[in-house]
Amino acid sequence: MSAVIHGGDLADLVAAFPGAPRPLIDLSTGINPWPYSVHPSDDAWCRLPQREAEQECIDALASYLGADAESIILTPGTQLAISLLPYLLAAHRVAIASPTYAEHAAAWRIAGVEVIEVALHALPDTEADILVVTNPNNPNGTLHPASALLDLAQAQAARGGCLIVDEAFCDVVPQVSLAAHGGAKGLVILRSFGKFFGLAGSRLGAVLAPPELRQKLRHAMGPWAVSGPALEVGAAAYRDSEWISTTRLALDAEASRLDELFTGHKLSIVGGTSLYRLAETDDAAQLKLHLAQAGIHVRSFDYNPTWLRFGLPPGEIAFHRLAAALESFR
Amino acid sequence: MSAVIHGGDLADLVAAFPGAPRPLIDLSTGINPWPYSVHPSDDAWCRLPQREAEQECIDALASYLGADAESIILTPGTQLAISLLPYLLAAHRVAIASPTYAEHAAAWRIAGVEVIEVALHALPDTEADILVVTNPNNPNGTLHPASALLDLAQAQAARGGCLIVDEAFCDVVPQVSLAAHGGAKGLVILRSFGKFFGLAGSRLGAVLAPPELRQKLRHAMGPWAVSGPALEVGAAAYRDSEWISTTRLALDAEASRLDELFTGHKLSIVGGTSLYRLAETDDAAQLKLHLAQAGIHVRSFDYNPTWLRFGLPPGEIAFHRLAAALESFR
Repeated sequence: MSAVIHGGDLADLVAAFPGAPRPLIDLSTGINPWPYSVHPSDDAWCRLPQREAEQECIDALASYLGADAESIILTPGTQLAISLLPYLLAAHRVAIASPTYAEHAAAWRIAGVEVIEVALHALPDTEADILVVTNPNNPNGTLHPASALLDLAQAQAARGGCLIVDEAFCDVVPQVSLAAHGGAKGLVILRSFGKFFGLAGSRLGAVLAPPELRQKLRHAMGPWAVSGPALEVGAAAYRDSEWISTTRLALDAEASRLDELFTGHKLSIVGGTSLYRLAETDDAAQLKLHLAQAGIHVRSFDYNPTWLRFGLPPGEIAFHRLAAALESFR
Repeated sequence: MSAVIHGGDLADLVAAFPGAPRPLIDLSTGINPWPYSVHPSDDAWCRLPQREAEQECIDALASYLGADAESIILTPGTQLAISLLPYLLAAHRVAIASPTYAEHAAAWRIAGVEVIEVALHALPDTEADILVVTNPNNPNGTLHPASALLDLAQAQAARGGCLIVDEAFCDVVPQVSLAAHGGAKGLVILRSFGKFFGLAGSRLGAVLAPPELRQKLRHAMGPWAVSGPALEVGAAAYRDSEWISTTRLALDAEASRLDELFTGHKLSIVGGTSLYRLAETDDAAQLKLHLAQAGIHVRSFDYNPTWLRFGLPPGEIAFHRLAAALESFR
């Protein structure tokens, strides 16, 4: 559907390597492979999504984020918000802290807006109606301190623009989230449900924004944009503080284990979050091919041919298949 | 989320009539109360919606409609398409065959476009960039012959405009569908999954449109707008021709039974489809109140205070509660 290349779709791998060992192991995304349990009610499937169900999901998310429920608009996935924003925010020039998730630049370019991709440190000195930062950044995991971003949002508000902060992977580093400031002038925060909670297929996201943009999003989506089952599972998951804290610790442990594996195999760790690790090697292209032949799909990047991004292997067997594949590449 | 009043949300009824008998019976929508069975896979929930899964759902829908798969774009519910179209189609004036589903007019008005609501027979003589027809119409069930609408679409194409045909309830009268012409210049067809298949919470809809509008919709929604579970259940349901034909017959029988009940209780049938019946009575407001006190929610209309729309009662107990409530109103 999109000209941008993404991880997470196995059809190409299946076509290119029909003889690769099964099951295929998809490490090409940053989605938690140990998902939150899903048990939507029959009502959630059958009835139009109820206002009460939507409000419950918003309230649960607000409580989880320490945010004002009023500041939140739910969306059927963060991507829809990214794609819609160029229709709703007037802009001549957008500056994006890069490299990052490629759909930001693509969406603004499609709308005919000038896009400049700048290094993060250059952002405060960049004149643009809209600044975009992903925090933590994808794929390299760079963390931007909340205070610096708040200053940037205020400066943007003063010039009649805004700062968009994509917090798609912020669940694992909640201390850098700006969600408590959601609704402030000049600040637009994007949140994603499916990555940390391992339910990317459910399509649930959120935008925390000033009142005017919230109203525009409501109009552009109309009522019932988010499915009943997604509202129900989102409300339950965001309230499950025990699952959330246990999962953060488990992901940290798995990410550390992956780092150890990499350092034993000539792969240096550039960065990442506990949902994905970015590794660097001069042999990245060959390694990607070698892994694909072993039925393991990882993410490469056109703009940096030495990088490979790895999601967490979904369990022991997958971990050991990855370890064996790295071993046989030496 | 919307300024437009809709059926299908029980919160107001619960608040206004806390003592009404339970379970509440929601007859305020035109959603099939006997839904298609839903068994989405874990993968559908956990992974990003796969291109293959999307294509399977599109192919199943195309086969069901007798349409060209190329002409189809899936959306997370028809409503999102209705809300987005004013952002994607240039128009100064939109003429809507009225009365009909109110979100059409609301969406164009929000975008600042002049909206005129005209009688159906006046539509061919109305000068407007965009014409909107719901076929069969909601709430009165008026059927527009395919040939007349095709002529209208051609005339609109010739003047650089288009005809939007909302076929939300067309599953029960497939003979009037224009889907086989999907993709033709000047013709935009909206389809809804949740009503006939009884899964309104799943959020699955489709737009059949010329290439340029399809591309604009792709850009405005980005990838993965429809959830994985919705793609899976949609693909299965659209291929289940036995369920489809059985359900059409069952809905016809239930609608006839409802008509018989009404004619025995001073309610004349204005029209409708086999998913909803529109009844007329001078006592409509009092009857709606009486039914609400009996725990039965029906749809009234600001613009015609003598109309009440009834969905199909979900089973024998509900049917007999409705019959008893009508009896006690005499």
